[in-house]
Amino acid sequence: MNAISDRAVLADAIFRPRAIALIGATADQTKNNARAQRVLKKNGYGGRILPINPKAAEIMGDTAYPDIRAAPGPVDHAFIMVPAAAVPDAIAGCVEKGVKVATLYSAGFAELGAEGRAAQDRIVAMAREGGLRLIGPNCLGLVNVTDGVPITNNAAVEAEALKPGWLSVVSQSGSIMGALLSRAMARNFTFAKLVSVGNESDIGAGEMAELMVEDAATRCVLMFLETLRDAPKLAAAARRAHALGKPIIVYKLGRSDVGRQIAVSHTGAMVGADELAATFFRENGILRVETLEALVELPRLVLGRTPPKGNRVAVLTGTGGGAAMVVDGVGLRGDGVVGPTPEMRARLAAQGVEVSDSPLIDLPMGGGKGQYTTVLKELVASDHCDAVVAVLGSTARLRPTQVNDNVLDVYDGSKPIAVFAAPQADEAIRICDEAGIAAFRTPETCADALHTFLNWRAPKPVENVPAAAWRGAAEKLYAVGAPRLDEAQACGVFEALGIEGPGSRIVATPAEAAGFTGPVAVKLLSPDILHKTDAGLVRLNVEGDAAIGATVAELLKIAAENFPKAEVKGVLVAPMHRGLAEVILGYRRDPEVGPVVMLGMGGVLAELKRSYCVRLAPVTEATAMEMIAALPELKLIQGFRNLPRGDVAALARAIRSISLLACLDGAAVQEAEINPLIIRAEGQGAVAVDGLIALG
Amino acid sequence: MNAISDRAVLADAIFRPRAIALIGATADQTKNNARAQRVLKKNGYGGRILPINPKAAEIMGDTAYPDIRAAPGPVDHAFIMVPAAAVPDAIAGCVEKGVKVATLYSAGFAELGAEGRAAQDRIVAMAREGGLRLIGPNCLGLVNVTDGVPITNNAAVEAEALKPGWLSVVSQSGSIMGALLSRAMARNFTFAKLVSVGNESDIGAGEMAELMVEDAATRCVLMFLETLRDAPKLAAAARRAHALGKPIIVYKLGRSDVGRQIAVSHTGAMVGADELAATFFRENGILRVETLEALVELPRLVLGRTPPKGNRVAVLTGTGGGAAMVVDGVGLRGDGVVGPTPEMRARLAAQGVEVSDSPLIDLPMGGGKGQYTTVLKELVASDHCDAVVAVLGSTARLRPTQVNDNVLDVYDGSKPIAVFAAPQADEAIRICDEAGIAAFRTPETCADALHTFLNWRAPKPVENVPAAAWRGAAEKLYAVGAPRLDEAQACGVFEALGIEGPGSRIVATPAEAAGFTGPVAVKLLSPDILHKTDAGLVRLNVEGDAAIGATVAELLKIAAENFPKAEVKGVLVAPMHRGLAEVILGYRRDPEVGPVVMLGMGGVLAELKRSYCVRLAPVTEATAMEMIAALPELKLIQGFRNLPRGDVAALARAIRSISLLACLDGAAVQEAEINPLIIRAEGQGAVAVDGLIALG
Repeated sequence: MNAISDRAVLADAIFRPRAIALIGATADQTKNNARAQRVLKKNGYGGRILPINPKAAEIMGDTAYPDIRAAPGPVDHAFIMVPAAAVPDAIAGCVEKGVKVATLYSAGFAELGAEGRAAQDRIVAMAREGGLRLIGPNCLGLVNVTDGVPITNNAAVEAEALKPGWLSVVSQSGSIMGALLSRAMARNFTFAKLVSVGNESDIGAGEMAELMVEDAATRCVLMFLETLRDAPKLAAAARRAHALGKPIIVYKLGRSDVGRQIAVSHTGAMVGADELAATFFRENGILRVETLEALVELPRLVLGRTPPKGNRVAVLTGTGGGAAMVVDGVGLRGDGVVGPTPEMRARLAAQGVEVSDSPLIDLPMGGGKGQYTTVLKELVASDHCDAVVAVLGSTARLRPTQVNDNVLDVYDGSKPIAVFAAPQADEAIRICDEAGIAAFRTPETCADALHTFLNWRAPKPVENVPAAAWRGAAEKLYAVGAPRLDEAQACGVFEALGIEGPGSRIVATPAEAAGFTGPVAVKLLSPDILHKTDAGLVRLNVEGDAAIGATVAELLKIAAENFPKAEVKGVLVAPMHRGLAEVILGYRRDPEVGPVVMLGMGGVLAELKRSYCVRLAPVTEATAMEMIAALPELKLIQGFRNLPRGDVAALARAIRSISLLACLDGAAVQEAEINPLIIRAEGQGAVAVDGLIALG
Repeated sequence: MNAISDRAVLADAIFRPRAIALIGATADQTKNNARAQRVLKKNGYGGRILPINPKAAEIMGDTAYPDIRAAPGPVDHAFIMVPAAAVPDAIAGCVEKGVKVATLYSAGFAELGAEGRAAQDRIVAMAREGGLRLIGPNCLGLVNVTDGVPITNNAAVEAEALKPGWLSVVSQSGSIMGALLSRAMARNFTFAKLVSVGNESDIGAGEMAELMVEDAATRCVLMFLETLRDAPKLAAAARRAHALGKPIIVYKLGRSDVGRQIAVSHTGAMVGADELAATFFRENGILRVETLEALVELPRLVLGRTPPKGNRVAVLTGTGGGAAMVVDGVGLRGDGVVGPTPEMRARLAAQGVEVSDSPLIDLPMGGGKGQYTTVLKELVASDHCDAVVAVLGSTARLRPTQVNDNVLDVYDGSKPIAVFAAPQADEAIRICDEAGIAAFRTPETCADALHTFLNWRAPKPVENVPAAAWRGAAEKLYAVGAPRLDEAQACGVFEALGIEGPGSRIVATPAEAAGFTGPVAVKLLSPDILHKTDAGLVRLNVEGDAAIGATVAELLKIAAENFPKAEVKGVLVAPMHRGLAEVILGYRRDPEVGPVVMLGMGGVLAELKRSYCVRLAPVTEATAMEMIAALPELKLIQGFRNLPRGDVAALARAIRSISLLACLDGAAVQEAEINPLIIRAEGQGAVAVDGLIALG
C-alpha cells in the first residue's frame, strides 16, 4: 500500500477524519488518556469515535473495541496513547485496518536516545510499508478549531474555550503550543489549526506547514521550532505561502554549537547554527521573530501583505520617551527611522499642521483640529516609509477610545501600522486587536516585529543551473573512490568548476620536481596523515631545482620513517602565490538547512576574530557580490584609501563556482573548502592554493 | 542666601513640605492646572495649600493669593504652572518669599532650543543666587506616595489609586513615569517616591537618586534616562546605594552618535555613546536593563542582595521549550547555564530523585513525592550557581496554586530565584508577586533580568592617585598657552606620564637635522595646518643627513608657499619605530559620563572594523590588562601560535598613564590620543609615535 501522496486527502485524514480511533482510551476520568475522548465530545465532533480498550465494552457512551482491528467501518485517524512497548502492535493494527494517519501521543522513542531512536525507526518502517502516515511520537496531538475536531489529550486545550479563527500553529514543543494558545486567547486571537509535531518521525514541521498553507481557514502560520528536520519541505511551504499571501512566522530556539566543533573544515567551525537558520528563513521569505510575544502580535502587521520595498519606518507619537524606546530598538537592528519629507511638511502646513523634520513626530492624540489624523493619513499614504508606528502615551490608559477617532477611523490599511502603548493600556490594546490593527505591549516586541517585517523579502528565486556548469566537476568526483579527496583531487574538482588551481605537480622522486621557476611549496601527499604542518611535511618558499629536489627527498624519508603505514601518493610541488588578500571559501551540506556557501577572511587574524558571510547554495554572482560587501575587511581591496584593487569579480565567480557543488546530488559533497583563495590585483584572477573535499 | 546643602532639609522641602504654593492654580476644574490642588486634597495632604492666582480670592476652599509674596507664613515648596513668560517673576517671588524648592511644570525652556536654553539659564541664575532649588522646568512634578503628598498635575497620578511601597522612580520622561506607574500597578507593585526631573536645570536625575537612596521608605530606585547630565552625582548615589543595599536599576535610551562625529580624535569617533553609558553603569554598580518590563520585574530578584560572585544559573523546568527560550537568552548574553554537580545528583538520588547532568532539570511541578521541592532546595542551597530559574509550564495556568506548594513554601530567599511562566498565567504570577518572588511574563525579560543580576558588580573602588604620578604632566600642560597642543608638546606630556616618546627633534633648518642614524619621519610642525599628510607635509622613511636635510628644506618651502599665514614652529624629525603591533590609546572627558580611557586597534583595518575597549578613567594596570584581554587582535602578541610576544606589560602601563589625565582637574584635558602606540617585543617597551591633546 502506498502512503498518501495527495495533500488534500492527507489534510482531511489529519484534520477532518470521519472516524477516529482512540487507542488507549479509558473510562477513568481521572486519567490523562480520558481527555481526548472528552474534548472530542465537548467540541461536538460529528464523526465516529472508536475507543480502543481490551477491558471495556463501552466508554463515555461510545462502544469500545478490544483492538483497532475489531473496530467497524473505515477509520481515517488513530490517536495512540498506549505505552511505548504497546505501540508497535497498535501501528500494526492501524496498518491492517487501513488507517490513514496515526498521531502518537505515546512517548519513549527518539527523545530518550539511541535505543528509543531504534524503536522509533522500527515503527516508522512499519508505517511506511503499510501506507500509514505518522504524527509524533512524543507529541501532544492537534486541534482543528475550524471544524471543532480536537485530537489531543492536552489539558490546556480542554481548559480553553477555543474559537475558530485564521491563525494556525505548528510547534515542536507541545507545552509551547499550549502557551501560545493561552497567550493568544488572552488577546481574543483565534485559531484555525494547531499541531504539536513531537519527534517528527514521519510528518515534520515543514510538511505540516505545507498542509497549513493550503488550509482554507488559515491566513497565517506560526511555528515554534527547536530544530529543522525537514528544511526542504519547509522551504516549499514558504514559497507556496508567499504565492498565496499567507505569511509564515517562526520563533526558533538557538542550538548548541557542539556538533560543529567536530567539523573537518573551517567552514563548519566558523558558522553558528543559528546564523544558518537565519539565512534559511531570510532566503525563503519566512518571517523570523526573536521575541515570544511577537509570534502573537506580528500577524496583524503582515496579514495579507507582501514584503516591503525598503526598511524605513515613520513615527507618530504622544510620548517622546515611549517612541524613543521603539526607535532605539529599530535603530539597533539597522533599520531606518525617517522624518517627514519637505513636501509632506508643506502639505501638512497647508492643512494647518506644523511639524518639524525630526524623525519623531510628536503630537498628542487629543490635540484637536484633527491634527493627529491629518498627519497619520499623510504618513500612511506616503512612499517615504514602509511602515508607520503610532506610539500611545497616557491617553491610551486614560481615554482609550481616542484610538477609535484618531487611528481606526482614519486608517485605510494601505500600509502596515504598528501601535505601541507605553503605559499599561489593556483597553486601547483591545480596541486595536478587535479592529485588526497590530498592537504591541512592549517596545521590544514592537521593534522586533517592525524589524522582522521591514527585512522581510520574497523567497530567493530557485535557479535552474545548467548541467554544463557542474558536470565536469561531478565526473571528477565520481572518478574518486575515497570518501575524502586529497588536495590535488580537490583542486582538480575546483578547477573543473572554473576556479584557478595552484599549478601543482605530483612527483614521486626529486628528479621529477625539476624545472620550477620561482619559489615553491612542497608538501607530502597522503590521505592518511592529517596534520602535515605539525609533522614537518610542508615546506614553503623552497627555490631552485637542487633545493626542491632535496626537500622532496627529505619529506619522503620523514614519511617513511615516521608514518610507515601511511599511503604516500607522492609529493606535491606548487608555485608560491601572492596576492592582495586571502579568503576562505567554504561549502557545506548542513544537516539542518542543506547546502550553504561561506566566504570568510583568511589568515591568522580570522581565527581570533571571525568574519564571514553565509548563504544558501547555489548563489549567483550577484549574491556573491553581496557576500563580498558584507565583509568589512574586503573593502581594503575595493579602492579604500588608494590601496590597490583586488580582482573582486574573480572572487565572486569563485564563490559562485564552489556553491555549484549543491547541484551535485549524485555524489553529495558534505564539506568543501578552499583555504586560502588568494585574490590577485584587478583583472588577474584568484587562485585556490589549497583545498579539501569530503563526501557524505 | 545659600542654596540648601543639607540633603535631609532638601528632601523634606521636596517631599514633605509644610506648605505648598500652587502658582497658576485655577478654580476651573476642566483645566489641567486645577489638578495639582485636587490631587493634594484627594490624598489628604496635611500641610497648608496656597493657591496663587491674581484673579481669585479662594480656590477649592483654600484662600487664594494674587502673588506668592502675599502668601502668609513660610512656604517650603512652590509648584509653578504659569506660562514660560511668567516664570521669571514667579521665581523672583519664590526667592523673595524664601521658598526652598520650586518644581516647574511650566515648559518652553531648553527643550525648545537655544533661546529657551538662555531663558532657562536666567531663571537658574536667579534661583541659585536666591538660594532656591529647582526641579524641572518641563517636568510633570513628583509624588511622595509614602506620606500622600502629590505635587503634580499629571493625569495618570490622579487616575491611579496609589498605595505606599518601597519602589522609587526618577524619570527624565514625564510620560514614562506614568507608564511605569501603570505597568507596576497592574502587578500591584507599590511606590515610595516618583519624580519627573524634566530639563534638570538644577536638581538632576543623579542628585534626585541621591535623595531617593537616603529615603527611609525606598528600598530600590528605578530610573528612566534619556541622557546623563549629572553623572558624578549619580555615581555618588550608586556608591551610597551599594553601601545601603538599595539597588539602582536603570533603563537608558541610546542616543544619536552625531555629536561624536565632530570629535577631533579617533577615540571620540570610535566609541558609541551607549557603550560609554554601559561602562559608567557597570563600573558604578548600577543595574542596567535592556527591556522596559525588567524595570518592573527585576527589583524582586535583587532586593536586599549584593552583587553575585559569578554568572551561572541553574534551571528547573516543567517545559523544555519554555526553559530553552530563557536559556537561549541567557546564553546569548554570555552567561553560564549549569547542570547539577555529581555530588548534588548523588544527594538527590539518595532522596529518591534521579536527575541527569543536563543543564535543564526537567521536572513537572505536580510530579509527586515532593521531587520538585527536593531539587529546588538543593539548587538554592548549592554554591555551583548564582541564581535559580524556575520555569512554569501549563501547570502555571491550569493549577496556579501549585506554585505555593512547590516554590513558595520551600524557598528560603537565600539565593535569587526567577520564575518564568511560559503560558499566560496571571494568577501564578500574582501569587509570586504577592510572595515577593521575582516573576516574569516573557522569556526575554526574564533573560534580561537574569543577565543584569548575574553581571552586577560592586562599584569600582575610587583610586586615590598620588599627585607625583601626574604633577609633571600637569606642569607641562600649564606651560602651554594654546587650547590644542602640537605633536611635540603632546608627546612631552605623555612622556611626563611615563610613556616613551618618539625621540623627535624640532629643527628650524636642514643643518639642524643632521646626525640621525637610520630612517626617520619628517613632519612640518604647525598648529594651523590640520591635514598634513594630504598637504604633502609628512615624509616617512627618509634616511641620511643629505636626504633628511633636503626634505626639511622642502617642507618649509611648501608650507611657506601653500600656507603663508600658518604659524610654522619648525620641522619635526623622528626616528622610524617598528614593533609587533600598533594600537590607539585615547582619553576623553565625555560630556555624559566624564573621563574615559580607550584602547583600540591601530592601522587601516581598525577603521573598517572597529575593535576597542573603554573604561572610566583613571584605571589601574590590572584594569588595563583586562582591556588588553578584551581585544582579540592583541592575542597575536600574547603567545598565539608561537608568534613573538609583545611587551603587554608596557602597554598596560601606557594605558594606566594616559588615563591619569583624569586627575588633572586644573587643566582639564578634553581629548588626548596616542596614535599609534607601537608595542615592541617583550621587555622592550612601547613607544608613542604621534599624539594629540586638546584642552577643554
